[in-house]
Amino acid sequence: MRFLRLKYFFIGKPIATDRAAHELIPKWKALAVLSSDALSSVAYGTEEVLIPLAAFAATAVAWSMPIALAIAALLTILALSYRQTIHAYPHGGGAYTVAKENLGLNAGLVAGAALLIDYVLTVAVSVAAGIENIASAFPFIAHHKVAFGCIVVLLLMVTNLRGVRESSNVFAFPTYFFILSFIIMFVVGAWQMVTGSASPVAPILHEAYPAIPLFLLLRSFASGCVAVTGTEAISNGVPIFKIPSAQNARTTLTWMAFILGSFFLGVTLLSHVYGIYPQEGETVVAALSRAIFGSSVFYYFIPVSTALILLLAANTSYADFPRLCSLIGDDRYLPRQFKNRGDRLVFSNGIFGLSAAAVFLIILFKGRTHHLIPLYAVGVFISFTLSQLGMVRYHFKHRRKKWLISSLFNGLGALTTFVVLLVVAVTKFIFGAWIVLLVLPCMVVVFRRIHHHYLAVGAELSLIGKNPPPRLEPFNHAVVIPISGIHCGVLEALRYALSLSHNVRACYIEFDPEATKRLLPQWEQWAAQIPLEIIRSPFRSIVRPLLRYINQVDHETQCDMITLIIPEFITKKWYHQFLHNQTAFFIRAALIFKPKIVVTSVRYHLQNT
Amino acid sequence: MRFLRLKYFFIGKPIATDRAAHELIPKWKALAVLSSDALSSVAYGTEEVLIPLAAFAATAVAWSMPIALAIAALLTILALSYRQTIHAYPHGGGAYTVAKENLGLNAGLVAGAALLIDYVLTVAVSVAAGIENIASAFPFIAHHKVAFGCIVVLLLMVTNLRGVRESSNVFAFPTYFFILSFIIMFVVGAWQMVTGSASPVAPILHEAYPAIPLFLLLRSFASGCVAVTGTEAISNGVPIFKIPSAQNARTTLTWMAFILGSFFLGVTLLSHVYGIYPQEGETVVAALSRAIFGSSVFYYFIPVSTALILLLAANTSYADFPRLCSLIGDDRYLPRQFKNRGDRLVFSNGIFGLSAAAVFLIILFKGRTHHLIPLYAVGVFISFTLSQLGMVRYHFKHRRKKWLISSLFNGLGALTTFVVLLVVAVTKFIFGAWIVLLVLPCMVVVFRRIHHHYLAVGAELSLIGKNPPPRLEPFNHAVVIPISGIHCGVLEALRYALSLSHNVRACYIEFDPEATKRLLPQWEQWAAQIPLEIIRSPFRSIVRPLLRYINQVDHETQCDMITLIIPEFITKKWYHQFLHNQTAFFIRAALIFKPKIVVTSVRYHLQNT
Repeated sequence: MRFLRLKYFFIGKPIATDRAAHELIPKWKALAVLSSDALSSVAYGTEEVLIPLAAFAATAVAWSMPIALAIAALLTILALSYRQTIHAYPHGGGAYTVAKENLGLNAGLVAGAALLIDYVLTVAVSVAAGIENIASAFPFIAHHKVAFGCIVVLLLMVTNLRGVRESSNVFAFPTYFFILSFIIMFVVGAWQMVTGSASPVAPILHEAYPAIPLFLLLRSFASGCVAVTGTEAISNGVPIFKIPSAQNARTTLTWMAFILGSFFLGVTLLSHVYGIYPQEGETVVAALSRAIFGSSVFYYFIPVSTALILLLAANTSYADFPRLCSLIGDDRYLPRQFKNRGDRLVFSNGIFGLSAAAVFLIILFKGRTHHLIPLYAVGVFISFTLSQLGMVRYHFKHRRKKWLISSLFNGLGALTTFVVLLVVAVTKFIFGAWIVLLVLPCMVVVFRRIHHHYLAVGAELSLIGKNPPPRLEPFNHAVVIPISGIHCGVLEALRYALSLSHNVRACYIEFDPEATKRLLPQWEQWAAQIPLEIIRSPFRSIVRPLLRYINQVDHETQCDMITLIIPEFITKKWYHQFLHNQTAFFIRAALIFKPKIVVTSVRYHLQNT
Repeated sequence: MRFLRLKYFFIGKPIATDRAAHELIPKWKALAVLSSDALSSVAYGTEEVLIPLAAFAATAVAWSMPIALAIAALLTILALSYRQTIHAYPHGGGAYTVAKENLGLNAGLVAGAALLIDYVLTVAVSVAAGIENIASAFPFIAHHKVAFGCIVVLLLMVTNLRGVRESSNVFAFPTYFFILSFIIMFVVGAWQMVTGSASPVAPILHEAYPAIPLFLLLRSFASGCVAVTGTEAISNGVPIFKIPSAQNARTTLTWMAFILGSFFLGVTLLSHVYGIYPQEGETVVAALSRAIFGSSVFYYFIPVSTALILLLAANTSYADFPRLCSLIGDDRYLPRQFKNRGDRLVFSNGIFGLSAAAVFLIILFKGRTHHLIPLYAVGVFISFTLSQLGMVRYHFKHRRKKWLISSLFNGLGALTTFVVLLVVAVTKFIFGAWIVLLVLPCMVVVFRRIHHHYLAVGAELSLIGKNPPPRLEPFNHAVVIPISGIHCGVLEALRYALSLSHNVRACYIEFDPEATKRLLPQWEQWAAQIPLEIIRSPFRSIVRPLLRYINQVDHETQCDMITLIIPEFITKKWYHQFLHNQTAFFIRAALIFKPKIVVTSVRYHLQNT
């Protein structure tokens, strides 16, 4: 009970199934919960574009604007494409569902695996980038990146175990704080440029761009594509919108794409004119804020709000990862535990799994965003491509109203994301994309094997095609009760044994013949009606002689089932349990996998000690 | 069974109780097993004497010889004193037994606690010093002291779980290798001095010793007293000697004291004449070896053989710590688990406990001998004093042959060790002795509370003074079986339930009314004879509705005992178990401490999956 109270304190009281419908949330809150992943990409998108360019040559950063425009175009295509998905799948059209239903099982499992990887990486990348932004403003944090990252993941886990409604309240404020502080920065930056109070170091548009290798351009583009990650979150999360869910979700998606696109372009543009270069210890957005606000208190708004939205972006995954696990679990491609909703209408097991994986990645990559990102993009674009491709098939199959135009949008989306996928996989292969390309097929194999196992168990346990007996017959049943002496606890166990069967035998494992001599008269006095077998144990072992005796009883009685009753006692204080022999534990461990034997502990509860 | 095979591989097959007598070992082997602790003190004794002196002034090291002579005198007194103990206690007269029998329970418990602390510190100090010696010869090891220390402790643990005979074989070689290499070093060193091929930097005896504070002299003496640790090991270990045990043990003790004393004096003398100072990264014995052998291969003999005997000295504790735990456990002042001999005639639980504590200390003190030693000496001299004092009382009580002379020896021993104890406690208090003086009374309190608990449990379980009933009556008994559906595994559990009682009820926790509708006709078909109760669970919880139902059954049937049968199934591959709902586990965890309920799992063994 004390455990339950602790649980309630941290994750709140349970919520009845009937209340599930009331947990739906309005658009402006849903934007906060589901778009933080996408919007927060602003934090690292520009930086990722700049890193390869700046590493090549200082002048190469001039290419950042054209690349950013290309990425913004990609974002527009994606948003148009996903609007179709929301329309067709009002109950939540994740890449898993769409690909499975339209492209077949394997495509679905690949998309599912890719999405699971993405969600984990969203948490890891967002938390790492959030810490880096905070560390830009408060440098002492830089030394404890990993520790802070792990703590943040644990806090997110607890928040999400509390349930979705309370989460949306927690997350609304930082999202709008982020939007507001960036708008202020853009306005002030633009004002400074117009009034000339700050002199931009670079022209906005170049007459001639420096010549750089195409591969480098592509790598820069591929890096920047992480800015569009999270676009699919809204189409996966349609069911949490208030009615009419689909319409609300589409509107929210459009808002989100518009905000994300303009913020990304804005940061890239301002970074370019203010001559911001990526550097160790300060993120690009923090550096931009310093260039615009100087050392005034407004400077802190950007890194702090960015960190907040990033840390909370991880929450998108906490909404979607357990939901996807539950979908895959329902289809029996993941362990059934993921299927269970916890007490709080959330999917507790998925939340635990996600947190553990994210902590692992943060520790493994020492909390460095830039090293995590190459893993991130591959999975995202695999799921994008499969999802759009699935939609194309969907339109051709169902031929609903305006299906041709819809399939055009989705076709364009599929083609674009496929090309981007190739670019990302090739240019980022050696930087970490290979890990995902290796893990993904392994996950699909595991999914299939899990499924195979469930089918096999189901078939073996099934009663279909079997004839019911006229009535269930009890087993021919014997009881064996090993004793270490005779006291109140043993008497209780003996009485229990007598109530289970008429065929009860006690046995005593003898280490010391003297002790046996003392025991026998006591036995005669207290329990003469039960036969007592004395078993010598020259090796002072308990389990093996006991097993031999059980086999002997089995042989003599020809019974179907033997119950082994172990007398134990329970002390009043739990830590006193350690003071007593754990023989029962070893007997149980030795016999647990043995057929025909049921091991039962009868516990005598001490009243005073 | 696979586990058993693994166990046999690592710790060998079990040995029958009858063979215990054959595990006795001859004097020369016993010297190796029981004296390594004492002899290995040579490795750090001189160094500990030198450190306080050298830190004060370079000339102060001249005092090392007089201090070493004082310590050698202390050793002689101890050896004479312990010869009386062996005579009086041929079955092993540890300080615990001697103090308890002659000075009363509290003195015994204090001595016991002090000894347990000592044994742990012997392992920690010896392993740390051994690693430091090896690191003197092979400096790269110095960076991984703690890791190597922990590995060595684990290896010792495995060796000792294999049993005492095999241990003595393992340990005979290094002990004699150590004795031989030191004799060679002494001979070569003496030869060099006599022939003048090496010129000693300091005279052996000084005409006038430099004036230094008395407190410093005492601290140097107190530090050096660690050289006599381990002297008591032989008197504790009398029972492992071949018959006549006591006579053999006394002879071995004399040998041991002679070797230890002359080696300690030899090292101190040579260190002085060769001008060896303690310094970081090289132990005094290794430095001495370098001074005498130069860089020839003989140089390595000393650090390697010292490391070997030190690492193996820890084994003295592995022989004595579990034996002492078992003695204290027999008296019920320690958990009974320590009382159990393992399969291999050794006391497995004590061995595990000792290893864990030693690893803890090595990690805590970062494997530095010099920091561990202040903790070491206090405990040793507490047990010395109590043991000798106990012997004085013994002689006065029993007044055997030559009791007066024996009590004189023991009295001298007690007085000397008590004075040394005071010196050590005062001069080493702030360097760590306080830890022991704090932990020791806590241990005594824990001993007494454990004892109190066992007495209380025994009294509560006891049948003494109770009247046996004419015959044992079975309980009034009901069976409840929660089901999640109906399949082969459930049918097996139902048949088992029917064989236990005529009062069997099944219950089904309903999450989804649709599933119930599908279940009911199947139930009618297969198990109509057993009443099935449908329990709604709006919170999707299983445990609480089940508990409510059990209380209801309890109330209706007015029974004494309810058996809850949980149908489970066992997959063929153990790791497949994780794919199945662990509901049974949670039910068991929730009900384990509830009186009147017995929880039993009936396991259906899948044949194919």
